Amino acid sequence: MPEYQSLSTQELLDLERQLQKEYAAWQAKGLQLDMSRGKPSTEQLDLSMGMMDIFSSQHPMKTDSGVDIRNYGQLEGIWEARELFSKVIGVAPEEMIVCGNSSLIVMYDTVARAMLHGVPGGRKPWGRYEKIKFLCPVPGYDRHFSICEYFDIDMIPIPMKSDGPDMDLIEALVSKDETIKGIWCVPKYSNPQGITYSDAVVRRFANLKPAAPDFRIFWDNAYVIHHLYDDQQDHLLDLFTELKKNGKESMLYMFASTSKISFAGAGVSFLASSLENMVAITKQLSVQTIGPDKINQLRHVLYFQNVENIYEHMRKHAAILRPKFQVVQETLERELGDAGIGRWNNPRGGYFICFEALEGCAKRIVSLCKEAGVVMTSAGATHPYGRDPQDSVIRIAPSFPPVEELRQAAELFSLCVKLASVEKLLAQRAAEEKTPA
Amino acid sequence: MPEYQSLSTQELLDLERQLQKEYAAWQAKGLQLDMSRGKPSTEQLDLSMGMMDIFSSQHPMKTDSGVDIRNYGQLEGIWEARELFSKVIGVAPEEMIVCGNSSLIVMYDTVARAMLHGVPGGRKPWGRYEKIKFLCPVPGYDRHFSICEYFDIDMIPIPMKSDGPDMDLIEALVSKDETIKGIWCVPKYSNPQGITYSDAVVRRFANLKPAAPDFRIFWDNAYVIHHLYDDQQDHLLDLFTELKKNGKESMLYMFASTSKISFAGAGVSFLASSLENMVAITKQLSVQTIGPDKINQLRHVLYFQNVENIYEHMRKHAAILRPKFQVVQETLERELGDAGIGRWNNPRGGYFICFEALEGCAKRIVSLCKEAGVVMTSAGATHPYGRDPQDSVIRIAPSFPPVEELRQAAELFSLCVKLASVEKLLAQRAAEEKTPA
Repeated sequence: MPEYQSLSTQELLDLERQLQKEYAAWQAKGLQLDMSRGKPSTEQLDLSMGMMDIFSSQHPMKTDSGVDIRNYGQLEGIWEARELFSKVIGVAPEEMIVCGNSSLIVMYDTVARAMLHGVPGGRKPWGRYEKIKFLCPVPGYDRHFSICEYFDIDMIPIPMKSDGPDMDLIEALVSKDETIKGIWCVPKYSNPQGITYSDAVVRRFANLKPAAPDFRIFWDNAYVIHHLYDDQQDHLLDLFTELKKNGKESMLYMFASTSKISFAGAGVSFLASSLENMVAITKQLSVQTIGPDKINQLRHVLYFQNVENIYEHMRKHAAILRPKFQVVQETLERELGDAGIGRWNNPRGGYFICFEALEGCAKRIVSLCKEAGVVMTSAGATHPYGRDPQDSVIRIAPSFPPVEELRQAAELFSLCVKLASVEKLLAQRAAEEKTPA
Repeated sequence: MPEYQSLSTQELLDLERQLQKEYAAWQAKGLQLDMSRGKPSTEQLDLSMGMMDIFSSQHPMKTDSGVDIRNYGQLEGIWEARELFSKVIGVAPEEMIVCGNSSLIVMYDTVARAMLHGVPGGRKPWGRYEKIKFLCPVPGYDRHFSICEYFDIDMIPIPMKSDGPDMDLIEALVSKDETIKGIWCVPKYSNPQGITYSDAVVRRFANLKPAAPDFRIFWDNAYVIHHLYDDQQDHLLDLFTELKKNGKESMLYMFASTSKISFAGAGVSFLASSLENMVAITKQLSVQTIGPDKINQLRHVLYFQNVENIYEHMRKHAAILRPKFQVVQETLERELGDAGIGRWNNPRGGYFICFEALEGCAKRIVSLCKEAGVVMTSAGATHPYGRDPQDSVIRIAPSFPPVEELRQAAELFSLCVKLASVEKLLAQRAAEEKTPA
């Protein structure tokens, strides 16, 4: 396939007609496919069904330390769960609390508490400022941005580079603006680009000198052990350890969960931070809740038993996910490889492929897909306020549909990319012709 | 036993010496008992263990409507749970959402959302007022008061009468102060007095004409079906229905949970309100969470199946709780019946006995109990800011300890009441002697 840019206007017009015909044929198929959200597939959820055999009516419902897991209490989660899962994210059990079934709500709550009561080291609650700001590496995770919008926190987009966010920009911004209170990061297999921050980037995070004494890094380690391959895995330098070297560990809130390890809607979630932060958080938790569901926590502990079993379990997830990523990547490569009308990543982990279309084409592509029965994540969702200034980024989520459906969806997606790109190039040519040389 | 008031000073001094001797003997026993919190006992938790047999690795994990309960989604809870539990609290399934394991967090969140974003009908978020206020019937539930303190909401104590809070005072206050935004109520088997609001009180709630268009009744129906007796049960008039007659149903947020039906730490909780309020709440929930733990919700639905089974289940709880309440009540009656140094209620449901000591004695009694190994709820906890102006109310929570321990604890408690009362009377006599007639 030739580069689309090199085609003559007539060739583009012929191509457009051809693509429209193909598109009409796809529309006639009446597909109903969904590549919009990073949901585990049924097959993946089946991997953890052994967990449903852990308890029976005859099972003793106590932890080793004698806590009745059915009753109230244990705001920080049961010790056994803190011990097991702290190893997954590389902190001490004391530095981590195990919460309910959603890390999103833990992140939301962490921001909410900071807005209402501030965080250690701060002069006042964040909500008492006229305006505070968060840095948002883009493209990024729409749910992070929604939390900022909900709390009326201004978002400053930070461009992502191949090894993490633009640290020059971050350093310059945080060092001079006391109202910049936080940054959202998905540091490993980032959502949506699948980028893992380089050691150099992590070290620059550890050496940040924010003007705000209560600046916080919201480190959403959602894909901490979510590799796609056994032999090619990204390694993320441990920011907590690096921060400790500088005595700055209170700058970090780290989040993770088993949503994509056990059950998406019924896993357990984690918040890790310095002991100083933990004291403040636990005190506030005592107002909020009677403690997390400890039955589900012990169910997880007894099912997985140790980290080695968790890693082994993740290999099974990878075996299911790998062919899904591959069929999308192969289709994109075959259909769009030489056309010069889009770029995408081939990540080594995580849940997404990030597609970058020609400028101004993303919305049109997503809309064409939708009209032919394939739901994509909304164009713009990867950016604060849903505004992608280039209108070029599309997040592809291949985890949920079966491989055969994905193949169809990826083919249709590729066709929509071609059609939108031809439309765009033709519109450009028309505009150029109107403009006198 | 004679009335303590009628004893001569010398008789009181003799009695004091005698009681001190008895107290020393109790101290020597080295008891370690806890009557401080309304926790279900192990035996009660065992009642629901059949729930642990509901799922196995072979069980289909879908609802009738095809929702995979392991995956993300269903912010309002699964339909089947809304259907079943809405019958328990007497609303339509659409008027109720089923949440996670703690109704406390649902109450906290409801206040938090109102502070940040306001509620339908309001002019601005509650947090944008210089100061807002809540009415707090006293004695009441300490966790309600903690939420107000956390959000810096001023609390106005409202005296409880024998059939509910002082409605004259409530009507007078809410009708003229736009900054009074809410009231906390435990309308059935109230915490700690075990009072159920009379029909007249409920109707006056339904006819409130608050100055604040965004005034809300926080109706914590924690003990909605938590009767102690089969033949003597309180009946609470349905406030939601009464409000609907006046088109004011949005004034109500109703809360409940299965914490004291299934598992205290691993049940499901409920929020019921008008459809108008529900729309606003669901919209905000979509920022907060990926949905509640639906596995636990379906586990509850499949275990209980219908409301009749739930009522039958509650009879089993009552059979365990009844002798515990009785041993405390009998002991109090025997030890303190004629002494005129305390009053208490004999509730027909709920989790507490409320003891009213002579003015100025509650702290001393709780402290004497503690020093002899029996932990009571802190004196003052039943009042906003932990301040009981009369220092007389003590909440007794008989649910957790076994009957034999309770007997001991109640005996020691009675002794501490006597001792503190004698001390108090002697101090009064001494003060009177110093004051010239």
